[in-house]
Amino acid sequence: MSSQTNPVLPPFAAVILAAGKGTRMKSDRHKVLHAIAGRPMLGHLLASVDALGPAAKVVVVGSGREQVEAYVGPEVAVAVQEPQLGTAHAVQQAEAALGGFDGAVVVLYGDVPLVPADTIARMLTRLGAADRPGVVVLGFRPADTLSYGRILADADGRIAKMVEHKDATDAERAVDLCNSGLLAARARDLWRWLGQVGNANAAGEYYLPDIVGIAAGEGRAAVVIETAPSEVAGVNSRAELAGMEAAWQAERRLRAMADGATLIAPETVWFSHDTQIGRDVTIQPNVVFGPGATVADGVTIHAFSHIEGATIAPGAEIGPYARLRPGAEIGADAKVGNFVEIKKARLGQGAKANHLSYIGDAEVGAKANIGAGTITCNYDGFLKYRTQIGAGAFIGSNSALVAPVTIGDGAIVAAGSVVTQDVPADALGVARGRQEVRPGWAARFRKAMAERKKTKG
Amino acid sequence: MSSQTNPVLPPFAAVILAAGKGTRMKSDRHKVLHAIAGRPMLGHLLASVDALGPAAKVVVVGSGREQVEAYVGPEVAVAVQEPQLGTAHAVQQAEAALGGFDGAVVVLYGDVPLVPADTIARMLTRLGAADRPGVVVLGFRPADTLSYGRILADADGRIAKMVEHKDATDAERAVDLCNSGLLAARARDLWRWLGQVGNANAAGEYYLPDIVGIAAGEGRAAVVIETAPSEVAGVNSRAELAGMEAAWQAERRLRAMADGATLIAPETVWFSHDTQIGRDVTIQPNVVFGPGATVADGVTIHAFSHIEGATIAPGAEIGPYARLRPGAEIGADAKVGNFVEIKKARLGQGAKANHLSYIGDAEVGAKANIGAGTITCNYDGFLKYRTQIGAGAFIGSNSALVAPVTIGDGAIVAAGSVVTQDVPADALGVARGRQEVRPGWAARFRKAMAERKKTKG
Amino acid sequence: MSSQTNPVLPPFAAVILAAGKGTRMKSDRHKVLHAIAGRPMLGHLLASVDALGPAAKVVVVGSGREQVEAYVGPEVAVAVQEPQLGTAHAVQQAEAALGGFDGAVVVLYGDVPLVPADTIARMLTRLGAADRPGVVVLGFRPADTLSYGRILADADGRIAKMVEHKDATDAERAVDLCNSGLLAARARDLWRWLGQVGNANAAGEYYLPDIVGIAAGEGRAAVVIETAPSEVAGVNSRAELAGMEAAWQAERRLRAMADGATLIAPETVWFSHDTQIGRDVTIQPNVVFGPGATVADGVTIHAFSHIEGATIAPGAEIGPYARLRPGAEIGADAKVGNFVEIKKARLGQGAKANHLSYIGDAEVGAKANIGAGTITCNYDGFLKYRTQIGAGAFIGSNSALVAPVTIGDGAIVAAGSVVTQDVPADALGVARGRQEVRPGWAARFRKAMAERKKTKG
Repeated sequence: MSSQTNPVLPPFAAVILAAGKGTRMKSDRHKVLHAIAGRPMLGHLLASVDALGPAAKVVVVGSGREQVEAYVGPEVAVAVQEPQLGTAHAVQQAEAALGGFDGAVVVLYGDVPLVPADTIARMLTRLGAADRPGVVVLGFRPADTLSYGRILADADGRIAKMVEHKDATDAERAVDLCNSGLLAARARDLWRWLGQVGNANAAGEYYLPDIVGIAAGEGRAAVVIETAPSEVAGVNSRAELAGMEAAWQAERRLRAMADGATLIAPETVWFSHDTQIGRDVTIQPNVVFGPGATVADGVTIHAFSHIEGATIAPGAEIGPYARLRPGAEIGADAKVGNFVEIKKARLGQGAKANHLSYIGDAEVGAKANIGAGTITCNYDGFLKYRTQIGAGAFIGSNSALVAPVTIGDGAIVAAGSVVTQDVPADALGVARGRQEVRPGWAARFRKAMAERKKTKG
Repeated sequence: MSSQTNPVLPPFAAVILAAGKGTRMKSDRHKVLHAIAGRPMLGHLLASVDALGPAAKVVVVGSGREQVEAYVGPEVAVAVQEPQLGTAHAVQQAEAALGGFDGAVVVLYGDVPLVPADTIARMLTRLGAADRPGVVVLGFRPADTLSYGRILADADGRIAKMVEHKDATDAERAVDLCNSGLLAARARDLWRWLGQVGNANAAGEYYLPDIVGIAAGEGRAAVVIETAPSEVAGVNSRAELAGMEAAWQAERRLRAMADGATLIAPETVWFSHDTQIGRDVTIQPNVVFGPGATVADGVTIHAFSHIEGATIAPGAEIGPYARLRPGAEIGADAKVGNFVEIKKARLGQGAKANHLSYIGDAEVGAKANIGAGTITCNYDGFLKYRTQIGAGAFIGSNSALVAPVTIGDGAIVAAGSVVTQDVPADALGVARGRQEVRPGWAARFRKAMAERKKTKG
Repeated sequence: MSSQTNPVLPPFAAVILAAGKGTRMKSDRHKVLHAIAGRPMLGHLLASVDALGPAAKVVVVGSGREQVEAYVGPEVAVAVQEPQLGTAHAVQQAEAALGGFDGAVVVLYGDVPLVPADTIARMLTRLGAADRPGVVVLGFRPADTLSYGRILADADGRIAKMVEHKDATDAERAVDLCNSGLLAARARDLWRWLGQVGNANAAGEYYLPDIVGIAAGEGRAAVVIETAPSEVAGVNSRAELAGMEAAWQAERRLRAMADGATLIAPETVWFSHDTQIGRDVTIQPNVVFGPGATVADGVTIHAFSHIEGATIAPGAEIGPYARLRPGAEIGADAKVGNFVEIKKARLGQGAKANHLSYIGDAEVGAKANIGAGTITCNYDGFLKYRTQIGAGAFIGSNSALVAPVTIGDGAIVAAGSVVTQDVPADALGVARGRQEVRPGWAARFRKAMAERKKTKG
């Protein structure tokens, strides 16, 4: 998952194939938009590519063009392959979008999402090496070779032959170096060779690996470099998606622990692709991170917390059952307790919101204390308004703060108040009904209800 | 887990043995009433049997008759085996309850709960086949044969011998076809043969498999049909119960994914025996389904949600931390957010209850917005009352709606109100105290408290 | 994990080595203060030692003395090893703290926390046996011997040689009896032998196992007794800490099930080191126990509950999403429902607090009903006050009870009240604003907002 720009890379373009039907996903969502760690598979690939400073990016889709375009935005070209006549044909669809681009082209797959930037860089670097190979193929050695295509190569990685599993001899099948499908070649070579690929095979498809043989016919070498099987794992079903998620999470949890966080039950913590966790952070069982969470050193996150788009400063204590939503900024040593939701709100240093509260569109000063059941009423059905709570203020339990409203520094709001006007600093705000007691009423009520029951029964 | 009625089955009765003491469960609850996927083991078996249209059902118990009767209701006979002299003796106790029933009898075990209807149908179909076997035994081939009784049979399934593990020769122990204990025979044969079973064995018990030898003595064949070990797994302890639950859940999760649902962390989603999940449903980590949940296409269920007896229409968004209880009907594109409980209440299309609310015995109109901290006060200690909230109504945060009460279409309830009278359509309802501010009060309070502390310290 | 005092043990002292730097933990917290099952590793060891009635306890630390002293309190001596010259040197640092203590000394390791009291007792008993060995070494036979030091011993456990892995011959490496590092010897012997240990080895360290050879030189035997690898597992990283936690939890869950509790999904229940669970308790998925929880027979704990320092009486029903904090005492057949927090409060028999409430510093009488959204306002920013709720009282939803306050037996509080004065028995207390309805106001508001939007747009 590491990504680092490599300034010596030659100019390159990435072509990401995403034209498969994804039938086994049984989904109206385009396959490559299904997510791992809260980011679509396509997003993982684009992040790896972007880390290397690509000259251009093209995604080749079959159906679902609009979905993909909406996700990638204008900076990525989307080409359509229709009909779908094989991988070589798919890559050809990217040629127009790349115009006369003259650098290297790396071919990736939208459903093979976890290829690290470093591995792509290695492919490109190998392509540009002194012996100037025509094609660089990415190979891997899986524990079980299944029906993968095999790569027959010498010790230096020079490919003698690439063969589909079904066409392979027993001796060839004994080879465990398999073809990931990923490859790199120079654009001019690539387009020329693709034009020569035929479809005289059982499926009548144009296969990308055929360019290796065509290059050889021109006296151009193809070479293989190897990577770990996990980097080139693909997704064809939701079960495989879940399997890849599990593998990603397992690695991320180990990394968090190696970096100095305690995970009481690592298998129950779900990170997002961009979660940042500090040192001496303690995470109790069952914590879910959505995108955009940053957790500083020494923070404790209790069980059943859900944290997304939030920043938590050192020493803060979160949960259990805390929900931090985008824009939550929790100050140093602040506390957010159970059944509390914080959204677009800043809690100052040492502030507390410990119980059953909704704090949205608000600013809470240092050491302010938000009582149980406090609600910031930030929405009138049309617009959202802000609540300001001063440093050291004390909001009595079960209060509603009707925004826009300001509670001054050191002010107190009496429990159960509905605050609609500002409360100045150091003042008390009370806004509740007067109490009335009706002696014996409850006894009479019970008697009446009992009689009613008797009558009805 | 599939079940489909088979119209060509002969009339049959099911005898379910449930007389074991279940000592290792250490429970006051009858062993067969312990649950898998939210349904007692006995209920799973009865569901399989019922799918085939049985003529009669008898459960044979040792102790705990009342518990079992209370669960199965009047349509299932409960016979008592006392004392407990072995499985043959147990089956005999069902004879009286079956009166002169003349069809086939299938013998099942209450602690072997996951036998599918199809497998029972196969047993009965085999019994009725042209070669008219006297007994059909259900066999399986476990990975580890442990101390199971072995079945020695020819390639056509004709049984030569059944032998207990402890009595088996080394050659016999090398056979991996094991006896599940389940069998089928015609009622008249069965009762006659059971009468001839003896107890001249180490335990002094009457063993059901002995009828195979007795049938052979009459020149009647016993045949074996095979099934998967998982179908005939038994439960003898709470750890085994948990193991069976885990296996059931694992299979159910795979099925949900194969059917087109995304489970981010499948191992953290618990289904009930009757959960229905649509296509393109997304389920985040840690979701628990109780019985009776139906989830339509395109629904998103966020983490930490608990859903029981609820119906969720397409495109709705649930959780995190949503609790849907029986009678919750969530409309299309509606939203139920964090720390919200919905019970016997319908949310109209696009309605929202996003934060810290209790909505019970209520009708919420389309696009109504329920503010944070809203409570429907539906109970007076004796009766429950309904709350009606009109389409497009806006309930301000922290309001209490004291039922019976009606909020009209498009009406607004001001934040913090305690609504005891109806609010007409398009009107505003306000019911809260007037705010009062006491300048400097908080500062004086703090000073007094500090002095008090000093004095007391 | 069993612990039982052994009255025939000789007087003994425990020396716990805790001077390792713990670099791989990446933590400001001393390594031995990291917790398993909610108790610091050092605490587990001290509990095992204390169960045997030690004469003295010494912890030898490198850095972090203050942290360790703060945890262990005055009854445990803390010695400092500075610089750190090896395990033999570390044990020597304890001599001064043990004064002239003349009994047996057992050497333990702060990062090998799960050694049971029984195993320590076996070591001490062996030391005192008739053949009076000089040293008792604790050995184990791991599945993978890795680079552990080996123990070469005869069938009676008499040690011929102890050899570090790196110094071992192939024949010696084939031995699978490994040295845990734990040992016992008489104090006078130990100090004398430690004084003779040299540091003429590659690391220039003084190694504790060297005393075995020194003892042999005096004609004194060293013997080995064996234990299970799990008892002498060590922790060097957060990942290993998590692994040990997982192993501990797995064993604890099996024990709970064996004792008669149903765990629907055992792998999602986290116990604390001292959790007590009764018979016929049902625990749904995702329940976390903090320290000090006691759960009586027949209790049901629903999903997503968090229970710490709480006592739950028979038949009570807890959760889902219930948070019981220290001092919660839940009476028989009482119910605590979703999004409810209970702290330092007693719920009487059959009392109910089912929804969205905070009950702190309170006494709730039998069969009282706490409505949804009830908050006990127990804190004024300086002091905490108690709320008394009588038997059979009914607290209407969304009420705030401003403590100190008493609601009498059978009294009713109207929904949405802010109660600041006592409500006598059988009385009704109402404290809320009067409702006002402004016809057409909502329609006009919507119109104005729409116009405003148009203008601004």
